[in-house]
Amino acid sequence: MLRGTDWIVVQMNATDPLTVETSESTGVMAGYLSESRALVLEELRQIIPDNRYGPILYDLMFDYLLREGKALRPALCIATCRALGGRLHDVLRTSAVLELFHNAFLVHDDVEDESLLRRGLPTLQREYGVPIAINVGDGMYAMCLEPLLDNSERLGLGKTLRILQIVARMARESVEGQAIELDWIRRGQWTASDREYCLMTYKKTGWYTFIAPIQAGAVVTGASAAEQRELQRFGRYMGVAFQIRDDVLNLVGDEQPYGKETAGDLWEGKHTLMLLHAMRCATPVERAAAERILSKRRRNKTAADIDMLLALIERYGGVDRARALGEQLADRARQALNNAARFMPPSVHRDFLQALPDYIITRER
Amino acid sequence: MLRGTDWIVVQMNATDPLTVETSESTGVMAGYLSESRALVLEELRQIIPDNRYGPILYDLMFDYLLREGKALRPALCIATCRALGGRLHDVLRTSAVLELFHNAFLVHDDVEDESLLRRGLPTLQREYGVPIAINVGDGMYAMCLEPLLDNSERLGLGKTLRILQIVARMARESVEGQAIELDWIRRGQWTASDREYCLMTYKKTGWYTFIAPIQAGAVVTGASAAEQRELQRFGRYMGVAFQIRDDVLNLVGDEQPYGKETAGDLWEGKHTLMLLHAMRCATPVERAAAERILSKRRRNKTAADIDMLLALIERYGGVDRARALGEQLADRARQALNNAARFMPPSVHRDFLQALPDYIITRER
Repeated sequence: MLRGTDWIVVQMNATDPLTVETSESTGVMAGYLSESRALVLEELRQIIPDNRYGPILYDLMFDYLLREGKALRPALCIATCRALGGRLHDVLRTSAVLELFHNAFLVHDDVEDESLLRRGLPTLQREYGVPIAINVGDGMYAMCLEPLLDNSERLGLGKTLRILQIVARMARESVEGQAIELDWIRRGQWTASDREYCLMTYKKTGWYTFIAPIQAGAVVTGASAAEQRELQRFGRYMGVAFQIRDDVLNLVGDEQPYGKETAGDLWEGKHTLMLLHAMRCATPVERAAAERILSKRRRNKTAADIDMLLALIERYGGVDRARALGEQLADRARQALNNAARFMPPSVHRDFLQALPDYIITRER
Repeated sequence: MLRGTDWIVVQMNATDPLTVETSESTGVMAGYLSESRALVLEELRQIIPDNRYGPILYDLMFDYLLREGKALRPALCIATCRALGGRLHDVLRTSAVLELFHNAFLVHDDVEDESLLRRGLPTLQREYGVPIAINVGDGMYAMCLEPLLDNSERLGLGKTLRILQIVARMARESVEGQAIELDWIRRGQWTASDREYCLMTYKKTGWYTFIAPIQAGAVVTGASAAEQRELQRFGRYMGVAFQIRDDVLNLVGDEQPYGKETAGDLWEGKHTLMLLHAMRCATPVERAAAERILSKRRRNKTAADIDMLLALIERYGGVDRARALGEQLADRARQALNNAARFMPPSVHRDFLQALPDYIITRER
């Protein structure tokens, strides 16, 4: 039914040895992320004007940006560029745009999902209403363009157009991924396969979280096609592993560090790896009961409904299975990065990239 | 309070002689518009893929496009290019993108305004729900980029980047205009001046309806800065005149040709020229009564509420005044175009541009 030509082939294989290394990754990560975040926020202050045309446009663009996000996407873009020998100066504006795009996507995604919390605070549409939230998201998308056009002075026309092509594809992939899930919701489709889940996630999350930041970072340095291909393999695995960890955290994570409500995905009726697995395994009676709950709008669901779904997921071992799949994907990502490391001399930037697989599948937020 | 530096200075001057020529404009217009529309739809069929990733993304992008719209924006872009000696081939893709952008804007605007009808049929969010409508709009915006990047093969890098800059600014102006009105709604501001109304309209409607299509059409031909300036003056006046006519039609037009519900602007609480005028003129008692109605959400308003607002507008001569202002603006647009006609040899494309002022202020849809 899903007719895409590009997807990640994921084979669940229970005998595949998992080798999650313990490492000092958290320290490297935290420092690199917070430094990138500060640089990118400063850059965004240059890009986004002050408070023009009333207080509900440009000011609100900073609302999500200033909440305690990880700023993973710009850090990844910067690290890729610098690990390949590029300069911060050449990639900073592009990284900032990727962070802006990500936050625009979140603003619209929260409206679409009727989410309550984002990074520990009420979502934008709960604070300002749906019309303002839609317009702020549109504005953030619009603001991505002019800074990328300004790249031409520094990077030349060729690289500028190439980065715009990456961003154009990223925008398209993200809405395609979103459309896949919205279509599942509309049709009450709750038994999508792992492969279908991976395709949806690759598009909806993976493209803008890993693939585009890595591609853009590499393009700035003039990396070869072969180098870019290896890095993209890394990004493809990481994107899906990242979303699987997010699915798991949403069920078992503490609300405090994670910043979204526990089991919010079940209240919102998201298609997580664990829920889809449980629904595929469920008896016809269990599945019918779960479908009745999942077809309700968020406000009509009860705590008992959510408990029933949690019990179903537990019965079929959904969380352990998701963790195992996340670890397999991280392992493949490590292999791809080891190949890519041949053309990246040792540096803190390469260290950051190499610490990512562990970080992604063990993070608490 | 509005701190923009670029606005249209509009001076209401009751003694200003109005010279609306009667002409055969309707015939020229109808033919040119329908021909452009057919070309642009064909081009959009090349740009937008078939039914990939489920039926609720690419198919739905054609939903508004295939309703009986005027396709004014692409026709204007084509006419400007061709009147300046450019080729259809060089401008068609850009024109198609402008039509796509316009329809994306309508999709989100209808969600924000909770509109019921668009071009005589239920709005997208009424048919498919808010989440799908937001995502389809996002997808349509995303699909604007790749075709404009493809321009480089035909137009070269310089013109390609220039058109992208126009589109980037158009996207920004549109959300700024929207933000101005959303801020008025939020603050219960119902006495904005004519000048503030014109700034809002110039940004929200004028930029993507006139200024960007004209600029893009001119850039393709390599028009000089002086030529572009004169054409932009034309576009600025036309943009506001167009919206004023829309405000009037919404009050006095027939639902059939117009395609939106009669007085829908009052149900939705839009800031029309007539309503703002009436509110500025109203007695404190009248204004307080009207504000009580306007502060209600659409679903809580009654037919009697709308009748009260209609009576208020009539009492202060709002419609006649709006018509007079529209005619003044059309007159200025005619003068600007007469100056621009010096560098446009006679052609059907120039005829189309010259017929526009009459058409805009007399159209029934």
